[in-house]
Amino acid sequence: MMTKPLLTPIRLLAQSEFARARAAAPSAHDRLALVADMCRFNCLSAVKKAGSGHLGSSFSAMDLVVWLYFHRMNTVRVGMQDAARDVYFSSKGHDVPGQYAVLHAAGLLSTERLTKLRRLGGLDGHPDVNIPGIEANSGSLGMGISKAKGMAWAKRTRGDGGHVFVLIGDGELQEGQNYEGLMTAANAGLDGLTVIVDHNKYQTDMTVDEISALGDLEAKFRAFGWAVARCDGHSFAAIEDAFATLERSTGRPRVLIADTIKGRGVSFMEPSREPQPGTYVYRWHSGAPDHESFTRGSEELLQRIRTRFAALGLGEPVLEVIGESEPAVAGAPKEFIADAFGEALVELGARRPDLVVLDGDLAADCRVRAFGERYPERFIENGIAEQDMVSMAGGLARSGFLPVVNSFASFLASRANEQIYNNATERSKIIYVCHFGGLIPAGPGKSHQSLRDVALFAALPHCTILAPANAEETKQAITYLVDTPGEVGVLRLSIGPSPRRIEFPPDYRLTEGRGTVLAPGKDAILFGYGPVMLHEALVASEALARQGFGLCVVGHPWLNRVDAEWLREVVAPYTAIYVLEDHGPNGALGDRLLEALASTGSLDGRRLEKFSVRGFPACGSPPEVLQRHGLDGASLAESILGARPVADMTVDERSYTLDAPQ
Amino acid sequence: MMTKPLLTPIRLLAQSEFARARAAAPSAHDRLALVADMCRFNCLSAVKKAGSGHLGSSFSAMDLVVWLYFHRMNTVRVGMQDAARDVYFSSKGHDVPGQYAVLHAAGLLSTERLTKLRRLGGLDGHPDVNIPGIEANSGSLGMGISKAKGMAWAKRTRGDGGHVFVLIGDGELQEGQNYEGLMTAANAGLDGLTVIVDHNKYQTDMTVDEISALGDLEAKFRAFGWAVARCDGHSFAAIEDAFATLERSTGRPRVLIADTIKGRGVSFMEPSREPQPGTYVYRWHSGAPDHESFTRGSEELLQRIRTRFAALGLGEPVLEVIGESEPAVAGAPKEFIADAFGEALVELGARRPDLVVLDGDLAADCRVRAFGERYPERFIENGIAEQDMVSMAGGLARSGFLPVVNSFASFLASRANEQIYNNATERSKIIYVCHFGGLIPAGPGKSHQSLRDVALFAALPHCTILAPANAEETKQAITYLVDTPGEVGVLRLSIGPSPRRIEFPPDYRLTEGRGTVLAPGKDAILFGYGPVMLHEALVASEALARQGFGLCVVGHPWLNRVDAEWLREVVAPYTAIYVLEDHGPNGALGDRLLEALASTGSLDGRRLEKFSVRGFPACGSPPEVLQRHGLDGASLAESILGARPVADMTVDERSYTLDAPQ
Repeated sequence: MMTKPLLTPIRLLAQSEFARARAAAPSAHDRLALVADMCRFNCLSAVKKAGSGHLGSSFSAMDLVVWLYFHRMNTVRVGMQDAARDVYFSSKGHDVPGQYAVLHAAGLLSTERLTKLRRLGGLDGHPDVNIPGIEANSGSLGMGISKAKGMAWAKRTRGDGGHVFVLIGDGELQEGQNYEGLMTAANAGLDGLTVIVDHNKYQTDMTVDEISALGDLEAKFRAFGWAVARCDGHSFAAIEDAFATLERSTGRPRVLIADTIKGRGVSFMEPSREPQPGTYVYRWHSGAPDHESFTRGSEELLQRIRTRFAALGLGEPVLEVIGESEPAVAGAPKEFIADAFGEALVELGARRPDLVVLDGDLAADCRVRAFGERYPERFIENGIAEQDMVSMAGGLARSGFLPVVNSFASFLASRANEQIYNNATERSKIIYVCHFGGLIPAGPGKSHQSLRDVALFAALPHCTILAPANAEETKQAITYLVDTPGEVGVLRLSIGPSPRRIEFPPDYRLTEGRGTVLAPGKDAILFGYGPVMLHEALVASEALARQGFGLCVVGHPWLNRVDAEWLREVVAPYTAIYVLEDHGPNGALGDRLLEALASTGSLDGRRLEKFSVRGFPACGSPPEVLQRHGLDGASLAESILGARPVADMTVDERSYTLDAPQ
Repeated sequence: MMTKPLLTPIRLLAQSEFARARAAAPSAHDRLALVADMCRFNCLSAVKKAGSGHLGSSFSAMDLVVWLYFHRMNTVRVGMQDAARDVYFSSKGHDVPGQYAVLHAAGLLSTERLTKLRRLGGLDGHPDVNIPGIEANSGSLGMGISKAKGMAWAKRTRGDGGHVFVLIGDGELQEGQNYEGLMTAANAGLDGLTVIVDHNKYQTDMTVDEISALGDLEAKFRAFGWAVARCDGHSFAAIEDAFATLERSTGRPRVLIADTIKGRGVSFMEPSREPQPGTYVYRWHSGAPDHESFTRGSEELLQRIRTRFAALGLGEPVLEVIGESEPAVAGAPKEFIADAFGEALVELGARRPDLVVLDGDLAADCRVRAFGERYPERFIENGIAEQDMVSMAGGLARSGFLPVVNSFASFLASRANEQIYNNATERSKIIYVCHFGGLIPAGPGKSHQSLRDVALFAALPHCTILAPANAEETKQAITYLVDTPGEVGVLRLSIGPSPRRIEFPPDYRLTEGRGTVLAPGKDAILFGYGPVMLHEALVASEALARQGFGLCVVGHPWLNRVDAEWLREVVAPYTAIYVLEDHGPNGALGDRLLEALASTGSLDGRRLEKFSVRGFPACGSPPEVLQRHGLDGASLAESILGARPVADMTVDERSYTLDAPQ
């Protein structure tokens, strides 16, 4: 007889409880402390329900955000449509689960919506202005001061009234754009702008000092002409004093350095000891807690809230159950193609002493930590400074090294675009590894889903872009890029886990400009790349086969190289050609296949249709987002059959996990 | 009877003269001062011969560069192949005519090559590593510290020996990437790296303080953990002392703030008085001097050199004549479509009070100064900080303004790529004006020629890109982008002058997704855009008509919008379709036309061929660069006829001027 697993309810404090707490607590600071813990509790539940999200910085910033919304700002009172409202947004954005909890507490967000964090139609994984209370989109770092400057300029120019507050992370201060904003805002004398640094001393999973130390922050801000104050970011009295000091300054923008504790409020999520360089990895930056941690953390917060409620004579807080947490059951291991990349890199490092690996504070996600441990003298942790990392790689390449530059595709291809071009003009060989390419995972949202990177790289001369689909193809691809004479090499990787392992013929060898048949079919041919879309293509092919329609699926990892003669032969039996892009419609494989087909006259009498991510990528679980874009296997099969429904198809919920990085 | 115009010979001091001067001068500093003046003379001649180039900062940096090459660095002695050599490069890069003159003086560059500044096979307008003595490509600002950091890291890791010196401009310090490099280089403890700030207090044409003041530079560098020294950048004794001070510091990278004078060495090129905010425009940042200024400046320098030569008993310096300067003859006025943009912007500003114009220190080239004078409260001069400018525009748009953001295409589309994407995800309406789009002028070189911007913008959802061809179309295009509901609008402008005025039918109205027939022809059809390539297309059509071949030329300003039905009808009479891109081969009009044709089956039995800029754009005069890329009218005509020579065609030398901005 099976024993029923021990479940923990996932609960939210009802919106009504916040009003009760605020009415009952004797002092303003007591009220705020209680509300902050209540918001932490709800934030923890929302992230657990979502399956991913950022707790560490949601909690470090919580007291500041609560202080702003429930004490300093007029926003809740005057409403979001009033031009005189105070404006708050977070530049780092990944702390938005905490802000959502506060907006919910303030009545700006419904409980129902808070239960749908990172789900379609719910709350985006990073801030989006379509969500009530959200003033700016963020998620890629370093843009907030500049954007807030525009808002403060607009307020001053129109005489609207209201102040602009922007929260930035300490790791975020490694991004150069901040210093552009510091300089120009000071020159504009924008005293309607206050920057708050959530100085929790940790970035992705290590201390800021270990990744790329900030040095004397106060001296830096002063040197840029700002009014500076510093305080304990968890003491409302200290926050109030610091703001009072800043508000006496005029004619200059203001910055508050708030010393905070990452994970504040849940004992085991706070760093347990003084950070020791190189020995400590912080666990609670991103990702939902496991069952046991959720249970413990939730209980700890609730206990504190109950004690306060009892002391205030408020009785038991009202909780609404929104789900259940259960212990993880070990499933079949999934393939992460990035693991294969990381392993191959270590192997290549042994025989290629010129290989240098650069990372921008994503070493774990990018699987480059093993290389760094094996070859510390050839591993450069550059912090969140992609432009600097890429130009440094240019200098290394000019000096005879072969740099392998790692970041998420959306940051690397876009933030460092001009630096990549500049390096390319030197005809240096450099390999850019674009992690988290494509639509999935879709929980982090638009700032992280990279659907333009192929177009950005394909516009470079002498660039080869490879998007492998399984572990072996990944190893072959990085080895090809390292060993083949060439210039710009791009390895585009899904961050995984792969929804299925894509199986290749056992003797598969990567051949320039050519793809591989992964499923036969006589009625139409589809070209795709990467594990996510090839999985969906195979799902479609399998479903269509049951309908008697043969869809041939070809894995084509070369995103901007096409062997036109090979292609001509491959498409010869078909009149219907499809390309499934894990990318926007322009500038990726489809355009190159179309051009190759047109160049050999192979399009005469044939039609090519692209399936791609049109518009901005939706945020949600993988199945719902794939379906929203018409890119899940069932939708693809229906499109190919001409909108006739395909029997025997359901959305494939189980191939994907909800876990998402960043 | 005509009087012969008064000509001034353009002359270079022979390479032999530098050895003579260096051997004869009694003290090291005397030698360096004389060599610096001799290099200024040669630099002035090279720029005059080229027709464009940057004198102001070539002259402000000259004493420092001469000091490095002829005193401090081992580079000339050990040679460019020695890993132990000291490395110097300029991050700003536009001062490279001065460096070329120094490399020539040091024997690293031939006299013949120095006579070919900004010409094909000569010396690029911005540094290129294929030129002897050049260590890094630059020209787009702010990358130098990062790249130098890579070189210094490589030297330290391999124990090569040698030091890395990088020169940066003061205006350049507005770019945020510098601060990434300052932070990471300090954290790496790279004491093999010295940054020299050429602090001449002027940027494009106004003072740094007027554009975007740097504040306390010494405090900034100290706050970033660097060893700092400051000195008169024209006193060799002071330079020597400052370097000696810096070299006593270990474990930290070093920066020398060198106070310099822009245009130093030619009296009238130095700022004539203390800069007065808003009232002074510096004339000698870029562009070749007119005949009279060249004659005066050249004479002033030569007089000083002759006096020194005589005093040293060296006799008359040996000069080689490389050309002649003659007074400008007023020709027919040329059209600049950017003028039409600037005029339209002022008109739109009157009826659109929400219009705000942003500039990144290119106000004159971008023709936005008139708007700034008329509506100073709605003009934002943001300095050389494109990312900050774009994100600020995002904040303005969120606050109800309609921002019109200006810079050169290569900087705006690329440097601020992720910020543009972030703004777009907020679904704000913002107009980006990409000036200096395309191949021509080709003198500034790869850092400035923008041949990827259309692909970069076309990868954005909800973006409309227009590239007008004459003044009226430009006015219609900016008016359309301002008045039509929409999201991201891009106006791509050739910087001009237009090689000819492109004539449209008198009743021409911009119609979404449709082009206009500019020349009839029954045998083939060619689509193009912008004044440069449409001129070449018309030249080709005219030549082919003389051969009895009818090439229909269609101006198609919509680079990512195609009315597929209209297109189907337009191409119906033809089997040969050509697209002439002022862009690289991928991601621009050709791909979109191909897709539209394929979608309606209109490609069956037809062939589409793209003419585009393949590889990196060449540097040179417009005719030679167009010819090199096969995009001049004659080459196009030959390609269309199938490589048969076209009679009666010569390269069109007179339609283009050599004058180039930046």
